[in-house]
Amino acid sequence: MAVDSLDLSADVVTLARELCDIPSVSGDETRLADAVEAALRGYPHLEVLRDGDAVLARTRLNRARRVVVAGHLDTVPVTDNLPTRLEDDVLWGRGTVDMKAGVAVQLSLAAALDAPVHDVTWVFYDHEEVDAALNGLGRVARNHPDWLAGDFAVLCEPTAGGIEGGCNGTLRAEVRLHGVAAHSARAWTGVNAVHAAGEVLRRLGAYAPATLDVEGLTYREGLNAVLIAGGRATNVIPDECVVTVNYRFAPSRSVEEATAHVREVLAGYDVVVVDAAPGARPGLDDPLAQDFAAAVLAVTGGAPAAKQGWTDVARFSSLGVPAVNFGPGDPLLAHTRDERCPVDQIVRSRAALAAWLSGARPEDLPLGLS
Amino acid sequence: MAVDSLDLSADVVTLARELCDIPSVSGDETRLADAVEAALRGYPHLEVLRDGDAVLARTRLNRARRVVVAGHLDTVPVTDNLPTRLEDDVLWGRGTVDMKAGVAVQLSLAAALDAPVHDVTWVFYDHEEVDAALNGLGRVARNHPDWLAGDFAVLCEPTAGGIEGGCNGTLRAEVRLHGVAAHSARAWTGVNAVHAAGEVLRRLGAYAPATLDVEGLTYREGLNAVLIAGGRATNVIPDECVVTVNYRFAPSRSVEEATAHVREVLAGYDVVVVDAAPGARPGLDDPLAQDFAAAVLAVTGGAPAAKQGWTDVARFSSLGVPAVNFGPGDPLLAHTRDERCPVDQIVRSRAALAAWLSGARPEDLPLGLS
Repeated sequence: MAVDSLDLSADVVTLARELCDIPSVSGDETRLADAVEAALRGYPHLEVLRDGDAVLARTRLNRARRVVVAGHLDTVPVTDNLPTRLEDDVLWGRGTVDMKAGVAVQLSLAAALDAPVHDVTWVFYDHEEVDAALNGLGRVARNHPDWLAGDFAVLCEPTAGGIEGGCNGTLRAEVRLHGVAAHSARAWTGVNAVHAAGEVLRRLGAYAPATLDVEGLTYREGLNAVLIAGGRATNVIPDECVVTVNYRFAPSRSVEEATAHVREVLAGYDVVVVDAAPGARPGLDDPLAQDFAAAVLAVTGGAPAAKQGWTDVARFSSLGVPAVNFGPGDPLLAHTRDERCPVDQIVRSRAALAAWLSGARPEDLPLGLS
Repeated sequence: MAVDSLDLSADVVTLARELCDIPSVSGDETRLADAVEAALRGYPHLEVLRDGDAVLARTRLNRARRVVVAGHLDTVPVTDNLPTRLEDDVLWGRGTVDMKAGVAVQLSLAAALDAPVHDVTWVFYDHEEVDAALNGLGRVARNHPDWLAGDFAVLCEPTAGGIEGGCNGTLRAEVRLHGVAAHSARAWTGVNAVHAAGEVLRRLGAYAPATLDVEGLTYREGLNAVLIAGGRATNVIPDECVVTVNYRFAPSRSVEEATAHVREVLAGYDVVVVDAAPGARPGLDDPLAQDFAAAVLAVTGGAPAAKQGWTDVARFSSLGVPAVNFGPGDPLLAHTRDERCPVDQIVRSRAALAAWLSGARPEDLPLGLS
């Protein structure tokens, strides 16, 4: 099958439509990845790399610093919402939000910026919408960690044109309460493990979660029971009860610190950590990132905010690269049948990234809005 | 198939062996019920009745008072522990404890006592060891409640020759805690239903159960969480948690009083009673019952104690008949592969019942012990 031709020099909204109209549901990204790779190979200022259906293109200008700008090529399944349609300056269809408008911004700038002020690595990856074990960015990080090296990363996930920085870490632990089973008609011969969970729940209910400022963004923590199970039968005094707790912790804490904190709150109990993932620093204290935030504020009006949930930015953080989310589209419309993105957000997102990477003052750049 | 022949005039231990050696696992009682019915029909002082595999035999002497003496014919499955064997004055095998030694005592006395001082209804029933809905005593109570009429009942379940009187009632209720689901990364937008269960468990843990004297016996109550379940997933703030509580209450309380008590302890919570069964009065304040207790004390040395768990005596109580458990065999050996009963307990249990029902002073009766 011939490779689809993509014109990266077209206006960014046209490019976004072309990308959306090549379906690429997770697992079927090859056609789109081939088109992206072929288009990027037309630009001699870019070195193009490929791993599976992930495509990377990078400048090699020996700039002092390198920025990674990443986006995923796959979408959730199409639900009768393709091909795209443009209506009253809104682009409708699968992928317009999550996240081919963002990919269009990346490709458009990868082609246009042959002399950015920072070296740039453009990353286009597969399998983001499915099981984390399949994630293309994770695979590249394992196979070629050097490909993702950089001083700062931008993930072009939809944020409606604002910056959402870093993310909280997450830790899950099981608190096991032990008792002695007995017939409930002779309860005094047993020890009730479910009653023992009362104090654990009391501590969790009384816990005042911290709000931490990390590199200019505000992260709200939380420590919650998410599951509880205990008891064997309605005539038996329970000999075991398990409370599963989930601690969401600011990216300024390590997993070890988070573990110690949970153990301290639940001191005296049998606490076993079952999984944990560190958060991601936003890195917004870096002048490079501050320039980006200034460009975004000037062009889209979006002030930086903390990302509370765990996202792929944490994959960059685990490689030592601070990262933020930034892209066109309302994240609440992602995955919906009515997925749609205002043209203005696509254009302004491109303009903000362009201003930052070209070193221009945002106000000096034409937005290209009619 | 010919009906097995049982010699009710044989010594009680021989009769117990014969009964055990006719297997009658729950659901397969017909062969034994037929043998019991045929044997009883040989005694003109008895009127014999039958409902399914339940057999009743009663005297009609127009005594002032009537006593019901009941036992079940079925056993749990045989586990290579039949036929019975007699070894050092201990009878081994399935049913020796639960409860064919007791049935042998009943049948032996039903035949021997043609002029008891109280009218007696001897009840032999099926399906005790399985689902309560199948219980033969319950079926007779539904089909022919008049067959079970009496002033006092003795259930010949194993008590090692002591009297265990009445039983506690039991009530189960579900306490539902309600919350608002949210992603656990944004816990402050939800309300945690599992945390809300903490106060319920605290109250249950702090609850001091009552000990009540009812007609001379001491009943220990209990109010316990027996099950707890809450939460949907490890990244979701739970919007529901259900605590199942079991209240075991003295037979002096009605189900309505027990319900009100649980609602009072858990005031402010959503409490739904899911099932309840009243306890059974022991009726040991009745002179008739006191005579029985005196006979048992004299012959077996067993002083009356309260039965804490719910048993079939409650079926008599629900018909207005106070009831106690009394029979040979250690209840802890019931259902075990090593089920066994000392011959002495069988003989003494028969002697105590015989003394009571014949109006003799226990010390005047020959035990028949070698």
